[in-house]
Amino acid sequence: MRENKALSAWRADEQTIGCWLSLANAYSAEAIANLGFDWVCVDLQHGLIDHADLATMLPAISTSQATPLVRVPWNEPYEIMKALDAGAYGVIVPMVNNREETEQAVMACRYPPDGYRSFGPIRGALYGGRGYAKEANTHLACVAMIETAEGREKAEEIITTPGLDGIYIGPADLALSMGLPAMGDQPQPEHLEEVKRLIALCKKHRVAVGIHTGGIEYTQKYLELGCNFIAMGSDSGHMMKAAAKELAEARGTQEKQRESTGY
Amino acid sequence: MRENKALSAWRADEQTIGCWLSLANAYSAEAIANLGFDWVCVDLQHGLIDHADLATMLPAISTSQATPLVRVPWNEPYEIMKALDAGAYGVIVPMVNNREETEQAVMACRYPPDGYRSFGPIRGALYGGRGYAKEANTHLACVAMIETAEGREKAEEIITTPGLDGIYIGPADLALSMGLPAMGDQPQPEHLEEVKRLIALCKKHRVAVGIHTGGIEYTQKYLELGCNFIAMGSDSGHMMKAAAKELAEARGTQEKQRESTGY
Amino acid sequence: MRENKALSAWRADEQTIGCWLSLANAYSAEAIANLGFDWVCVDLQHGLIDHADLATMLPAISTSQATPLVRVPWNEPYEIMKALDAGAYGVIVPMVNNREETEQAVMACRYPPDGYRSFGPIRGALYGGRGYAKEANTHLACVAMIETAEGREKAEEIITTPGLDGIYIGPADLALSMGLPAMGDQPQPEHLEEVKRLIALCKKHRVAVGIHTGGIEYTQKYLELGCNFIAMGSDSGHMMKAAAKELAEARGTQEKQRESTGY
Amino acid sequence: MRENKALSAWRADEQTIGCWLSLANAYSAEAIANLGFDWVCVDLQHGLIDHADLATMLPAISTSQATPLVRVPWNEPYEIMKALDAGAYGVIVPMVNNREETEQAVMACRYPPDGYRSFGPIRGALYGGRGYAKEANTHLACVAMIETAEGREKAEEIITTPGLDGIYIGPADLALSMGLPAMGDQPQPEHLEEVKRLIALCKKHRVAVGIHTGGIEYTQKYLELGCNFIAMGSDSGHMMKAAAKELAEARGTQEKQRESTGY
Amino acid sequence: MRENKALSAWRADEQTIGCWLSLANAYSAEAIANLGFDWVCVDLQHGLIDHADLATMLPAISTSQATPLVRVPWNEPYEIMKALDAGAYGVIVPMVNNREETEQAVMACRYPPDGYRSFGPIRGALYGGRGYAKEANTHLACVAMIETAEGREKAEEIITTPGLDGIYIGPADLALSMGLPAMGDQPQPEHLEEVKRLIALCKKHRVAVGIHTGGIEYTQKYLELGCNFIAMGSDSGHMMKAAAKELAEARGTQEKQRESTGY
Amino acid sequence: MRENKALSAWRADEQTIGCWLSLANAYSAEAIANLGFDWVCVDLQHGLIDHADLATMLPAISTSQATPLVRVPWNEPYEIMKALDAGAYGVIVPMVNNREETEQAVMACRYPPDGYRSFGPIRGALYGGRGYAKEANTHLACVAMIETAEGREKAEEIITTPGLDGIYIGPADLALSMGLPAMGDQPQPEHLEEVKRLIALCKKHRVAVGIHTGGIEYTQKYLELGCNFIAMGSDSGHMMKAAAKELAEARGTQEKQRESTGY
Repeated sequence: MRENKALSAWRADEQTIGCWLSLANAYSAEAIANLGFDWVCVDLQHGLIDHADLATMLPAISTSQATPLVRVPWNEPYEIMKALDAGAYGVIVPMVNNREETEQAVMACRYPPDGYRSFGPIRGALYGGRGYAKEANTHLACVAMIETAEGREKAEEIITTPGLDGIYIGPADLALSMGLPAMGDQPQPEHLEEVKRLIALCKKHRVAVGIHTGGIEYTQKYLELGCNFIAMGSDSGHMMKAAAKELAEARGTQEKQRESTGY
Repeated sequence: MRENKALSAWRADEQTIGCWLSLANAYSAEAIANLGFDWVCVDLQHGLIDHADLATMLPAISTSQATPLVRVPWNEPYEIMKALDAGAYGVIVPMVNNREETEQAVMACRYPPDGYRSFGPIRGALYGGRGYAKEANTHLACVAMIETAEGREKAEEIITTPGLDGIYIGPADLALSMGLPAMGDQPQPEHLEEVKRLIALCKKHRVAVGIHTGGIEYTQKYLELGCNFIAMGSDSGHMMKAAAKELAEARGTQEKQRESTGY
Repeated sequence: MRENKALSAWRADEQTIGCWLSLANAYSAEAIANLGFDWVCVDLQHGLIDHADLATMLPAISTSQATPLVRVPWNEPYEIMKALDAGAYGVIVPMVNNREETEQAVMACRYPPDGYRSFGPIRGALYGGRGYAKEANTHLACVAMIETAEGREKAEEIITTPGLDGIYIGPADLALSMGLPAMGDQPQPEHLEEVKRLIALCKKHRVAVGIHTGGIEYTQKYLELGCNFIAMGSDSGHMMKAAAKELAEARGTQEKQRESTGY
Repeated sequence: MRENKALSAWRADEQTIGCWLSLANAYSAEAIANLGFDWVCVDLQHGLIDHADLATMLPAISTSQATPLVRVPWNEPYEIMKALDAGAYGVIVPMVNNREETEQAVMACRYPPDGYRSFGPIRGALYGGRGYAKEANTHLACVAMIETAEGREKAEEIITTPGLDGIYIGPADLALSMGLPAMGDQPQPEHLEEVKRLIALCKKHRVAVGIHTGGIEYTQKYLELGCNFIAMGSDSGHMMKAAAKELAEARGTQEKQRESTGY
Repeated sequence: MRENKALSAWRADEQTIGCWLSLANAYSAEAIANLGFDWVCVDLQHGLIDHADLATMLPAISTSQATPLVRVPWNEPYEIMKALDAGAYGVIVPMVNNREETEQAVMACRYPPDGYRSFGPIRGALYGGRGYAKEANTHLACVAMIETAEGREKAEEIITTPGLDGIYIGPADLALSMGLPAMGDQPQPEHLEEVKRLIALCKKHRVAVGIHTGGIEYTQKYLELGCNFIAMGSDSGHMMKAAAKELAEARGTQEKQRESTGY
Repeated sequence: MRENKALSAWRADEQTIGCWLSLANAYSAEAIANLGFDWVCVDLQHGLIDHADLATMLPAISTSQATPLVRVPWNEPYEIMKALDAGAYGVIVPMVNNREETEQAVMACRYPPDGYRSFGPIRGALYGGRGYAKEANTHLACVAMIETAEGREKAEEIITTPGLDGIYIGPADLALSMGLPAMGDQPQPEHLEEVKRLIALCKKHRVAVGIHTGGIEYTQKYLELGCNFIAMGSDSGHMMKAAAKELAEARGTQEKQRESTGY
C-alpha cells in the first residue's frame, strides 16, 4: 500500500505544512497540491464543497506528492467511510466532544475487527495500491477536532483514545467556546494558553497535533510551538488576500494617475 | 437597461481595474467580483472554463457591481452570441488579425441592422433589465485582441473598425509574435515599445485600450501609460503566487525549527 | 449585516409571499427570485436538489431582493450548518416532532453560547456582509415544520421553543398524519380546522406561521387566515401546470383544424 | 430503427405541437416531455444549455413518447453531428441563409455517400436501436431556420434543397430582419404576411413548416395557418408566465388583507 | 402505478439478475440498463456516486425495462426518502444489525400510517404514474443488508420484520465479520455455509434473498442456491476486467511482434 | 518538460497500445489509465464528453503513466488549443482531407513561429512542468485522421505534412468512404488492403500510424501489420461487451435452474 507520508511524519513527531481547500474545483486543487505542501485537506464542512466533488478533486490531488486529507462535514460514520472510499488518506472530524464520539470516529475508519468500516474502497484501493485491504487500518489517519467547551474539558480522554492519530485545533470555534470572538488567527493570550495546553497534552501522549491558520504569521507561531501539522491558509483565502492587497495598491496608483493626468 | 459601467468609463477615457477568472467556480467568481474590481472577465479561451460554466459564474458575478466580461474562445460568431445571451456585458475576442475579422466580431455583438446577432437574450435580458432589446447594440462592449504579427501590422485598421469598443493586448502572444519568449509581464524594451505604439494608436482614435498583467507591478506600469482597462492577475494566479510565497517562508521557519529542536 | 427582510416582516407580523424551488438550476432560481417574491426556498428534501446545487443557486438568488431560504433534508445539525454557511438566510426544518427536536434545530442555527453552530460562514459572510459573525444568531431564521402526528400533538411546546422564528405547515404530510389522502391543497374541513388551530397557536405566541400551497387559490385562502409566509407553488409546478393547460387547449384547436382541413 | 414519429407526421403533412427546453435540467426536460407533447427541442443556441447537458437531458426525454430534437448553436457540422450522436432525432439549424448553407446542414446529418457525417452514434444507436446505421440518413430530421434577410430572399432555394425535412421560422429574428422590433409573438401585419408567404412556399414544395411561439395564442393562430410543428412556449417561459400572473393576483389579495386587518 | 417487476418476481420466489452501478454517469447507466438486466442498482455507499447523480442516472435507467434500485449510503431515513423521491423503486440498506434498525429502514420507505416517509415524490410519481401516492407503500422494495456480526446473529429477527421485502448479502463485509479476508467472491467453505444459512432462513420466512458477486462464476453458484436477486458484477468491474484481460493478451502479441520484427 | 512517452515510442517506430475513453467520468478514466495502457484518448467527437469534462478527466489520467491524448471534435483550431491548454499531450484530429487541412491542424498545435497556437497553457504547463513553453512545439503530438474519400486519395500529401506526428485510421468512416457498411472491425478484404496501403505510406515516410479497434482480435491483427498505436476498444465498449456476455451465460443457468426447480 502506498505510504501515508503525512502520517509517517506525524508518527515521527515531525512537522508538516498543508493547505486547506475550500473551492470545489479540480484545477485549483491540483495547482495547490503541486506547490509542494506536505498535505492538502478538502473541506466538506464549511466550504462549498460536497462529497461529489471528491470524485474530481482527489484524483487531481493524486497527481502530486501531497497526502490527501478530507475534513468530513460531521462525525457521521458514513460520511467518513465515503471519504475514505473515495481515496482520502485521512479524515479530520469536526466538533468531537468526548471519548465516545472519538471512538465512533476511529471505528468508522477501521475495518473489523478494529472498527465497523464497510468494505468497498473503490477509489481508495486504486490510489493506495496493493495491500490496501490489509493495511488500511494502520495507514489511514483519523484526526479529531477539539474546538468545543466539552471537547476542551475532556481533551485528555479524547487524545488518549486508542487508534486516534491526531488532534486538530479549530481556533475560531475554540474561541467561541471560550466566549471570545470567532476569529481564526487569535491574538488573545488566553486563547494561546489553551492552544498550548492542548499541544502539551498531545505531546505528553505522543499524539500528533495540528491547527488551522489564516497564513504565514500564525503558521510560524505554531511551528515554533511544535505543531505537527498546520494548515497555512486556504486556496480561496490566499486568492482573496492577494487580490485585495494588490487592488488596494492599484487604486492608489490610479488615484495618483487621475490627479496628474485627469484620466 | 442596466448601465455598462466599465464601458461608460472607457468611453470617458477613464481607467478601470479588473480581474481575470480562470477557475470554473461560482464562489471564487463571486468572491473576486465583490472585492471591488471594476470588471471581471471569465476566460473561455485558455482557462479550464467552458460555456456551461457561464450559467453559474455570471449570476455569481451579478451579485456585485463589477461589470461581467467574457473572453470568448475564438472569433466565432456563435460563441460570442452565447456569451452575450448568458449575460456578458462585453466580449474580449482573441487573435483578431485584420479589419474583416474585427467586423465579424463586432457584427456578432449587434442585432440587425447593425450586425447579425440572433435574438434570444435569455439571461442577458434578465440581467440587463428593461430596454435590453433596444439598447443592447450600444451598451455591450466588443473588444478585439491585438496579439498576432498580422494584427500588429494591421492595428490601425482594426482599431478604427466602426462599432469596436476597445483593444485588449495579450502580452504573451504579442511577445511570441515578435520572436520574444512567451511571458506575460514582459521586461523587453521592444515589447514595451510595441505596447506603447498600440496604446498611442488607440488614444489617437479614441478607442479604449486594455492589457493583461500578472499583478500589481505591471498594472502600475500600464496605468501610468494610460491604459483604460487592466486585468490585474487572475483568481488562480493570485492564489498560487500567495500560497507559494508563504510556503517558501514557512519552509524556512520549519528548517530553523528542525535545527533547533530536532522536530 | 445585510437585513433579513423576510424575517423582519414576520417579526412585524406582516405577510410575505414566496416561491418554492424544486429545480436544480441557477437560471430558473434567478428568474423566479427576480419576479418580486419576498423570499424563495430551495428544497433539499423532496426536490432533486442536492447541497452542491446551493453553491450555484444561492448566488443566483442573491442577484435579487428575495430572501434566500433553504429547506434542509432533515433535522440534521450539519445539514443546517452547511446551508447557512452557503448563504441561506434561514432554514425550514422538516418533520419536527417535539421540543427537544426543535431545540436541536435552533441550536444548529446559532453560534455558542446560544447553540453549537460551528464557525466558518464561507459564503454566508460574503452575502451577509460586515457584522455577520456577531449578528448571525439574531438574523438567520430557524423555522420548524409541523406535519406529523406527534408534532401536531406537541405543537405548543414546539412553537414556544426559545429562539424559534416560525412554524411552517406541510399540508400533505399533515393530511397523512390525520389519516387523510396526501394532497397539497386540501379541501377537507378537518384539515382546515387543524391548520387554523396551528395558526391560532402561533398568533397566540407571536411566532410567525407559514404554509405550503400549490398556487394562487390556497395562497389567497391562507392570506385571509393571516399566515405570515406562504409558498405559492414551485418553479416546476408553475411550469407544468401552465404547459399542461395550454397543451390541452392547443389539442382542442388541433382537433378542430383536423376536422376542417384534414391536416 | 425506432420510428421518428414527429418526422413521420410532418411527411404526412400532419400537425404537431412541441415545447422548447431552455433549462439545463434533466427533471424539467423529463416532466415536460411526459406531458404529451409530440416533440421537445433542447435549445443549444439561446438557452443556457451546453452540449454536455444533452448527455443528461436526452435520456430524460427518452422516457417519454416525445421525439427529441435539438436546436444546434450554429450551422456548424460538428455541432450537428455531436447532437445526433447524443441521440437527437432531428436538428434545427439557426440562421440559414442560402442553398449552400442548407446543403452544409443537410450533409452534416447524413452518412456518406449522402453527406459527410462521421460515424460513431454512441447514444444515438442506443436510443434508435437496431438498424440505426442503415436507416439514420432517412429517419433523422434536418430542419433549417429561415429568419434572416438573405434567408427570406432565398427562401425557395433553401426550401427546395434535397434532403431537407423542414423549415422553422424564428419570429423574433425574422422581425429584426424586416426592421421590426424583436418580439416573439408578432402582431404586425407585414410580419404575418411574411410568415404566410413562407408557409405557402413550404406547402408548395411539400416541405414541413414550423414556427416558434410564446404560448397558446399564437399556437392557435399558426395551427390555423397549417403549420406542421409549433413550439408552444418553453419550460422557463411557462414557469415565469404562470408565477408572475399568480404573484400579481396574490399581491392584490395581500393588499386587501393589509387594508382590512393591518397585517 | 407502474409495476415493480423485480419485486413482483421476488414475491413469486423467482430469480432475477441485476447489475451494480458504480460510475456516476448517465450513459453507462442507460447502456447497462438496456442490456436486459432485470434490475440495476445505483450504489450511493461505496461508489463515487452522490445523491445528485440520481437526478440524471435514474431517468437514464427509466428508458429501459430494468427496475431501478438504489443502495443508500447508510440506514439514514432521509437518505432513503430522497432516493425514493428521485424515482428509486427500491432501496438496499447497508449494515443493518437488528430488528430495530430494520424497522427504521422499513418505516422510512412507507407513508403513514405504515411508516414516517414524508410526502413529496417529485420524480417518483412521474416515473410511477397514477396511483403512486396510494400504492407506493406496497410497491417499493425495502431490502436490508446482512453483513455484520450482529446482523448475522440476529438474522432471523431482521428477516421477519414486517414490511421488509428482502435481504441482501454483502459477501466482503460478511467475510470481515467472520474474521476472513475482505473478498467479494469468497472461496472459503465457512463463508459459503453462512450464506447458505441466511438463504435458508429467508426461504423459511418467504422473504426474498439477494447477494453481490463479481461476475458470472459466483452468479451461477448463487443461482443454483436459489437466490432471488444477484448483482452480477458492476459497470466499472466489467470494464476493468475486460480491458485488463485484453491488454494482457495484446502485450503478449506485442512481445512476439517485437521479437520477430524489432518494432 | 515531462517526456511524451507515447510520442517517443512512435518516433522510434515502436508499438503502443491505448484505450479509448467515451465515458465522461473521472473515475473510469483513472481506472483505465492505471491498467497499464501506453496512452488513453478522451473522445470529444463521438462520445458524450464535452470540453468541460477534460478538466476532471485529464487530472485523473495524470495519476498514471499513460500519455493523455484527446480526439478533438473537429479540425477547429480553438478546440485543439483548448485541449492542449487543458493538458493533452497530443490531439487526434478527425476527418482531415488534404494538405491544407493538415497544416491547419499542425499549426494549431504549435506556438509561433511554427504555428499560431495562442499562449496560455493553464493546466498543460502544470502537467508538463518546467520548459513547457519552449519545448511544447516538439513534444505535443499532432495526429490526423484519414477516413474520408478525399483523405484517402490525398493520403500522401497529408502524411508528408511537415510537423505532423502521425496518422490515425478510423475504420468505420473509412469503410463508409469506400461504400462499405459502417463497422469498426472490418472483415472486408478491400478494407484491409486500404489499411495496408495507408500503413505502407506511413512507414515509407516514417510517420507513425495508428488505428481504432473494438478489442483484442483486431488489435492483434494490426500489431502484426506494424501499427504504432492501436486503440484497443473503449471504456464503455469493454463494459458492455463483458456485461452482455456474462448476462447471456447467466440467463442460460437461470433457465436450467428454472426447469429443475421451478423458481
